[in-house]
Amino acid sequence: MFVKNAWYNAGWDYMFTQSQKNGLSQEKGALVARKIAGERVVLYRKPTGQLVVLEDRCPHRQAALSLGQKEGDGIRCLYHGMRFGADGKCNEIPGQETIPERACVRVFPVVEKDNWVWVWMGDPAKADEKLIPHAVGPSDPDWNVKTSQMHVKANYRLEIANLADLTHLAWIHRDTLGAPDLTTRDRYTHIKPKFTMLSHAMRTEYYVRSVPINSFLSHLFPPGMLFDLEFDIMHTLPCTWVLHFRAFVADGKDEGAPTGQLVADTWTSQAVTPCDEDEVDYYYSWGASKVCEFAGLSQLLCDNLDDAFTEDRHVLEAQHVRMKEKPNFPMVDIIHDAGPGKMLWLLDKHLKGEAKEAATVTA
Amino acid sequence: MFVKNAWYNAGWDYMFTQSQKNGLSQEKGALVARKIAGERVVLYRKPTGQLVVLEDRCPHRQAALSLGQKEGDGIRCLYHGMRFGADGKCNEIPGQETIPERACVRVFPVVEKDNWVWVWMGDPAKADEKLIPHAVGPSDPDWNVKTSQMHVKANYRLEIANLADLTHLAWIHRDTLGAPDLTTRDRYTHIKPKFTMLSHAMRTEYYVRSVPINSFLSHLFPPGMLFDLEFDIMHTLPCTWVLHFRAFVADGKDEGAPTGQLVADTWTSQAVTPCDEDEVDYYYSWGASKVCEFAGLSQLLCDNLDDAFTEDRHVLEAQHVRMKEKPNFPMVDIIHDAGPGKMLWLLDKHLKGEAKEAATVTA
Amino acid sequence: MFVKNAWYNAGWDYMFTQSQKNGLSQEKGALVARKIAGERVVLYRKPTGQLVVLEDRCPHRQAALSLGQKEGDGIRCLYHGMRFGADGKCNEIPGQETIPERACVRVFPVVEKDNWVWVWMGDPAKADEKLIPHAVGPSDPDWNVKTSQMHVKANYRLEIANLADLTHLAWIHRDTLGAPDLTTRDRYTHIKPKFTMLSHAMRTEYYVRSVPINSFLSHLFPPGMLFDLEFDIMHTLPCTWVLHFRAFVADGKDEGAPTGQLVADTWTSQAVTPCDEDEVDYYYSWGASKVCEFAGLSQLLCDNLDDAFTEDRHVLEAQHVRMKEKPNFPMVDIIHDAGPGKMLWLLDKHLKGEAKEAATVTA
Repeated sequence: MFVKNAWYNAGWDYMFTQSQKNGLSQEKGALVARKIAGERVVLYRKPTGQLVVLEDRCPHRQAALSLGQKEGDGIRCLYHGMRFGADGKCNEIPGQETIPERACVRVFPVVEKDNWVWVWMGDPAKADEKLIPHAVGPSDPDWNVKTSQMHVKANYRLEIANLADLTHLAWIHRDTLGAPDLTTRDRYTHIKPKFTMLSHAMRTEYYVRSVPINSFLSHLFPPGMLFDLEFDIMHTLPCTWVLHFRAFVADGKDEGAPTGQLVADTWTSQAVTPCDEDEVDYYYSWGASKVCEFAGLSQLLCDNLDDAFTEDRHVLEAQHVRMKEKPNFPMVDIIHDAGPGKMLWLLDKHLKGEAKEAATVTA
Repeated sequence: MFVKNAWYNAGWDYMFTQSQKNGLSQEKGALVARKIAGERVVLYRKPTGQLVVLEDRCPHRQAALSLGQKEGDGIRCLYHGMRFGADGKCNEIPGQETIPERACVRVFPVVEKDNWVWVWMGDPAKADEKLIPHAVGPSDPDWNVKTSQMHVKANYRLEIANLADLTHLAWIHRDTLGAPDLTTRDRYTHIKPKFTMLSHAMRTEYYVRSVPINSFLSHLFPPGMLFDLEFDIMHTLPCTWVLHFRAFVADGKDEGAPTGQLVADTWTSQAVTPCDEDEVDYYYSWGASKVCEFAGLSQLLCDNLDDAFTEDRHVLEAQHVRMKEKPNFPMVDIIHDAGPGKMLWLLDKHLKGEAKEAATVTA
Repeated sequence: MFVKNAWYNAGWDYMFTQSQKNGLSQEKGALVARKIAGERVVLYRKPTGQLVVLEDRCPHRQAALSLGQKEGDGIRCLYHGMRFGADGKCNEIPGQETIPERACVRVFPVVEKDNWVWVWMGDPAKADEKLIPHAVGPSDPDWNVKTSQMHVKANYRLEIANLADLTHLAWIHRDTLGAPDLTTRDRYTHIKPKFTMLSHAMRTEYYVRSVPINSFLSHLFPPGMLFDLEFDIMHTLPCTWVLHFRAFVADGKDEGAPTGQLVADTWTSQAVTPCDEDEVDYYYSWGASKVCEFAGLSQLLCDNLDDAFTEDRHVLEAQHVRMKEKPNFPMVDIIHDAGPGKMLWLLDKHLKGEAKEAATVTA
């Protein structure tokens, strides 16, 4: 089950190139096939650079357009040569005079923003760019953002739950994103975030005060040095997760905004795109402000996400297998389900809303 | 869905050897397992060389006879040693005096013709050798035929449609079997073949006049040289496709049989065998007449089929995946569906005929 | 379908180590995941060495406990840090004061005996150690036992049938466990064992008299030398198979206990554990008495099992595929089905007994 009227992430802008090579030659980036929310789509750039997203399925006999070739603003299926414009309409059937009106391919709205490519999988009339989450991309001049990606064989609801509660940093990620010592781990698990529910998103804010820096950064600072960590997360449907993370020299207080020196000012932007019910594509970045960055910090941040998300991948894939084996297993709720519960409630609300709307249209 | 009363191709005669090694030793060619139209069969040669085809399934507990060993005219299951004659009847159960009448294996009629091995998957009483398509095999003294094979993960109906219309040479195969220039490709897509429907086959005939030679042969002739190409295809159910292809020096005329010098006189014989609904074995050959061949032409022809059918394989496998995802996708017909439509109509006619017959027998 | 109230083998004791490394680090032996009779379990040792078996599924959201870490007598799930005692009860939820009563993991009775680890998959109240089959393990001071294992993609009923009738030694295993000559193979197939049915097991006893030694041992003895072979097998539900195999210099008699010199005195202990309906884990050992062993015999015995069970694996996996394709294929029974028939009858009796009991409890 996927929300249709939503922006789904298809990766970074640099993944889609101006190459004119055809799909059979498999040149990277010219025609990019993706599976998003159960639909196969093909993405390519017009000569102007503008992106086009079409269903990756020729209306003739379902050949893959991503095995075709770009021609001007359009695309040609290389099976029987049918050519389609960027509007999805067939404008040539080689050897045939007339073109049936039904010979068209579904077009999906697409927007580039903050170096990310966003595809709208529902009713184009409802595609509202304002719904695209804010992010900080690799070409932002103020931030030194590095990017990476991962494919995970798990349902995207497990990723939502994973991202909506960071207390698990204390456990899976204790050697990476988490804390090197038991006391700090205990602090992480006692976080009481401030949740703010929006129509399509949840904002989560909290501080962790007077703790050592995260494990993967601890070699950079003197032993015993303490920090105030600030987390400000916007988690948007279906599953985009953007965190403004800052570390300050601890000011010794327990409450209020940190007043110590700002040591690291970073943004991490993460998008989970469900391919289908069993797999996701995960695009993520992390980078530090150029104002207070020191050499190599941003690459260190992003490389660490590769390590941490590999830890998550093992856990989520095993969890996915088990959930498919026992879909009716009675589960026990704990305090850390607050965040995941809210985000999944929001997702289900939108899913139900769309189901109700579809039922009304049909009736 | 497969037509039962039909000859299916199991490969070339040289694939089935006289070796006496047993199946567990996996010696190539002694006992050959195939999956044809959903049935598992084992093929082997008697000491006389005569081929035998049995269901690859011991009547005791379904062990694979192809893991057994040849003994005289028969085969022994190596699980409990039950021995079967070439007539499928059990003639020894080691340690047991009497042999139950039911202890027999299904026998399939088999015929070797033109170096091809044909298995009849239906009622043996109806096996009519006259239904075997004509082909030109590697041991034909007049032709220099080379052979190859491919496994494709697609339903055989997609292969039928692919072979029943050659206008796609202009697109997928433009760098191999097709034409190097746009004008010629346009000519290919305007072909109006002469179709002749027979009870089990469709004959397709046409000329392409005053065009450059096919892309993969273009390095052999002077630039600008033009040819008249003659196609004469017999496409037989379930899916055998035999083409007599000739290239003449262009005589400048637009109609009638070409009168220029015969440059290449070739036969290609191709058989698509459905393993099940999702996979086919594809056996194909191509060769030139010894009269007008020049060194290496036949090997060039057959090697080029490997390239071209790899192009097809990518397209058909992606198409197969998409058709399984959306079996009810509304498809748009185009002019080039004429040939595929006729062949699939013929296939469906035979399928319905057999279904009706089966219903009558049951009632 | 699996008998629940039964001991299933989880491997040898040495597979489960005292390591304290956590599951994410994948250290061999600290936390061992197994799939037994359709259930996922995790096995580990307490500091005392005592084994614990829990369902490999956190009650919170089904994360794999085998990716967690050992802590004292218990285990901690590394997703959100929930800690469980060896009794399966949650004793810590980091960040949460109260612990719901339902927050517990299923515990399975486990027993080590003869170096084997046995897990009871049913009602713990019914776990009776007396039901554990006798075996001779690698640490038995009187026997020089070597161990090995194999994973087979076949239903465990096929393994039961395979082990319950050894006449197949004459065929699949003629170059390994079987006989090098036709006469002896014929003798093997005429064996009339003495079967004794017990409540949970079948004992099978027989002699093969005045025959050459098994193929894989024939290089050790003078050509023409004859032996009396004694087989005494205890085959226990679900599928443990222990054979006391002895070879004597042939005494020339046809009946009664052999009176010739004891040449080889050996025990082989074999356990087939169904993972699910399609796969089994197979743990086996073979070893000779230290009294009459010569150098290398025990390793030769066990290595030969690897060879012989690879022969079986090919046959059973092909059989499994065929049985799934044609579940209603009418099968023919033969004389050698006596042993398999009795063991499968015993299995089905227990399966029906448990089904009846479950129905009574429900009603």
